[in-house]
Amino acid sequence: MSDVRIDDLPVRDELRGKTPYGAPQLDVPVRLNTNENPYPLPEPLVERIAERVREAARHLNRYPDRDAVELRTRLARYLTDTSGHPVGTAEVWAANGSNEVIQQLLQTFGGPGRTAIGFEPSYSMHALIARGTGTGWISGPRGEDFSIDLEAAEKAIAENRPDVVFITTPNNPTGNAVPPETVLALYEAAQAAKPSIVVVDEAYVEFSHGDSLLPLLRGRPHLVVSRTMSKAFGAAGLRLGYLAADPAVVDAVQLVRLPYHLSAVTQATALAALEHTDTLLGYVEQLKAERDRLVGELRAIGYEVTASDANFVQFGRFDDAHEAWRRILDRGVLVRDNGVPGWLRVTAGTPEENDAFLDAVRELKKEHSA
Amino acid sequence: MSDVRIDDLPVRDELRGKTPYGAPQLDVPVRLNTNENPYPLPEPLVERIAERVREAARHLNRYPDRDAVELRTRLARYLTDTSGHPVGTAEVWAANGSNEVIQQLLQTFGGPGRTAIGFEPSYSMHALIARGTGTGWISGPRGEDFSIDLEAAEKAIAENRPDVVFITTPNNPTGNAVPPETVLALYEAAQAAKPSIVVVDEAYVEFSHGDSLLPLLRGRPHLVVSRTMSKAFGAAGLRLGYLAADPAVVDAVQLVRLPYHLSAVTQATALAALEHTDTLLGYVEQLKAERDRLVGELRAIGYEVTASDANFVQFGRFDDAHEAWRRILDRGVLVRDNGVPGWLRVTAGTPEENDAFLDAVRELKKEHSA
Repeated sequence: MSDVRIDDLPVRDELRGKTPYGAPQLDVPVRLNTNENPYPLPEPLVERIAERVREAARHLNRYPDRDAVELRTRLARYLTDTSGHPVGTAEVWAANGSNEVIQQLLQTFGGPGRTAIGFEPSYSMHALIARGTGTGWISGPRGEDFSIDLEAAEKAIAENRPDVVFITTPNNPTGNAVPPETVLALYEAAQAAKPSIVVVDEAYVEFSHGDSLLPLLRGRPHLVVSRTMSKAFGAAGLRLGYLAADPAVVDAVQLVRLPYHLSAVTQATALAALEHTDTLLGYVEQLKAERDRLVGELRAIGYEVTASDANFVQFGRFDDAHEAWRRILDRGVLVRDNGVPGWLRVTAGTPEENDAFLDAVRELKKEHSA
Repeated sequence: MSDVRIDDLPVRDELRGKTPYGAPQLDVPVRLNTNENPYPLPEPLVERIAERVREAARHLNRYPDRDAVELRTRLARYLTDTSGHPVGTAEVWAANGSNEVIQQLLQTFGGPGRTAIGFEPSYSMHALIARGTGTGWISGPRGEDFSIDLEAAEKAIAENRPDVVFITTPNNPTGNAVPPETVLALYEAAQAAKPSIVVVDEAYVEFSHGDSLLPLLRGRPHLVVSRTMSKAFGAAGLRLGYLAADPAVVDAVQLVRLPYHLSAVTQATALAALEHTDTLLGYVEQLKAERDRLVGELRAIGYEVTASDANFVQFGRFDDAHEAWRRILDRGVLVRDNGVPGWLRVTAGTPEENDAFLDAVRELKKEHSA
């Protein structure tokens, strides 16, 4: 052992004094802080995963399919079936979580001397991955109600001429969706400023009241839709993210992807999960109902709530959100303080978990009013 | 579908005209081109993997252990047991293949405005990952016999003052090991030029006649040893690379690692494989004997061979190595043309595969002499 510290090492200047990203992993009865799906995979799917992985393990001495063709074909079929927009294998790319998808996109279209913009508060990894890839980060504006103010956003794009534009819809941590016409207008604004890539992060789209923006891909080779199996497929532990875009975008990210980046066990597990799509989307319907219930009950209790199209709900307002977070935690319920002043975020859990959460915030409200 | 091509997209300038890395994946009877272990995992291990993954799949709706503590603990024990040098959990970090380990190291200690050096020919991904992370690449020299000429290497370090130094030992694709005293001298030279990180890539060290350089870590906080389960553990399909270094280095790479980068199925599979270390190291002994046989037979046939401490052998010389590669392929044996003028590389396979290879190159020699 030694007493060397990070800052004693020749780390990059912009990393000095930083701490790693990540929600606290606390051991409490009800964890509603990381937007996980509360439903474990059904046992027949667990068995199918074991079966498929056993088969893959028999060839594990060999490198995996570098291009993950079977998996990308099945993902394309899933996107086609659920969006009505035909997506082919050549238009899909997969990686270890949507984080790696975004990292590959920034390595290809961002990087040193280039910039990316997001409309904040939004998924904070976009900015962190930009930093990790040497891409300059521009914090674009959102309105008071957390919607994207189109005029202000267009102005930010025209002034900054970013190389990559992130639009998260439904947005995390606020929960609200971005109207398709806003996405279209931002795409046009971005192209007018400079040929740039627009990434629509649809990690939570399966929980939306509206539709996926996949049909917008047609005729827009600079548009990318990113997705994940972490939420709707209940497979956060699998780390499988993917994108749909023009085949040229898929070809381009292969210039920076680490060869054989997607292991044979990951590919096998994802393929098994895709066989059980219908069952898993059934859970999504239950979660949407629970999400809507949370919105209604929180408002009935007297909280402000941001309209949610995701599997989580942003609620407030608090004079001191972190203190409220702590007091909810004292009642055995872990929610997320994303650093949005006055607001907290709760993931839709099982009915029982949501009841425990609602009891906790009801008591909090009473104390506060007392 | 569209007719857009990569160069029609706003990709980074340095990616224009490039093609993705990767050996041709051809369907031939004997594939000795990617240094895979020819022995499938033993069936009891396959079953153990299925068992562990089944258990992990029951919690797959939750994110994996972000810090992979159990896996790092077992890897540390493996390193301790096999090197005699005590390694603790805090000194080990794991990622999706040693490629991702190297990418994280370059994101932390290299990147825009910084440089890395390798002594070429060597593992070509070092340079490619440097490019992908915006790190300037310096091609350091090797001697005519593919050893590192210490004086020339020290001079290159002193002149270029790189931020990261790669030393691959045993070296790929040449197969020869770097003497520990050379590594030590290069470490000193690098520190004298500038506080820099020295990465010893030991991907093939289990096949070496010599020992791991892990004991050099003591008192050298800027030294990193990288490893992989792809070769000795016969698990190229798993994509599990790892490093050992001062705990501060492990802390530092966590500033750039994508959160939850290592899936629950990857962690489960790697843990299963580590339970079967003894069996897998038994295969390593067989492969070392076959490697030595290849060296002896190739020399007997009349080829030049670079001394090998790896699970592959570099042989030559050819007036036209690519033509020789093609003619060996015509005989159903796929070896690797790494672009080293006059030389080819063959992976040690099963005795039968090696016989097929030796027959092919024996014929080639006869034709050439005829």
